[in-house]
Amino acid sequence: MIAIQAYMTVRPEKREEFIKNVTEVIEASRKEEGNISYMLTTKVENENEFVMLEEWKDQAAIEAHNTSAHFQKFAGSAKEFLAAPLDVKHYQA
Amino acid sequence: MIAIQAYMTVRPEKREEFIKNVTEVIEASRKEEGNISYMLTTKVENENEFVMLEEWKDQAAIEAHNTSAHFQKFAGSAKEFLAAPLDVKHYQA
Repeated sequence: MIAIQAYMTVRPEKREEFIKNVTEVIEASRKEEGNISYMLTTKVENENEFVMLEEWKDQAAIEAHNTSAHFQKFAGSAKEFLAAPLDVKHYQA
Repeated sequence: MIAIQAYMTVRPEKREEFIKNVTEVIEASRKEEGNISYMLTTKVENENEFVMLEEWKDQAAIEAHNTSAHFQKFAGSAKEFLAAPLDVKHYQA
């Protein structure tokens, strides 16, 4: 199993729109065959800093996710919301 | 490097007190020699569900943390705040 933490700093004025937009990719990702969990969290110290906590069966599941229509759509719109580049960490369970 | 995700479901009436109480263990843990990062997040879908995201140099650093006065104090008080048992996940980077 592979865990991913995706760190996203969102522009304050885009926070609500970001949350609405990201709900779509969360729901679609949870339906993917290789997904174990997919959950959005926000830092208590700064509500504009988000961490997506993801668990995937294997690397093939991550690759299928990265090429999925819903993730591509989200990644394409991310620039509009993010105040800093996406920071993604991979871990082995 | 070892990453830990500690999942905590907090009783709604204890949320603010929990956040105040956990600030102490966050600040002390970040000062520990073996700590890389220690950050409290909350689920966007449920603000009473928290995830502490931690990164440690190695297992010895985690053991030193688990026996530290500040962690022992927090763990002792946790029962008062938590609505469900603590769920801790360990990952390798």
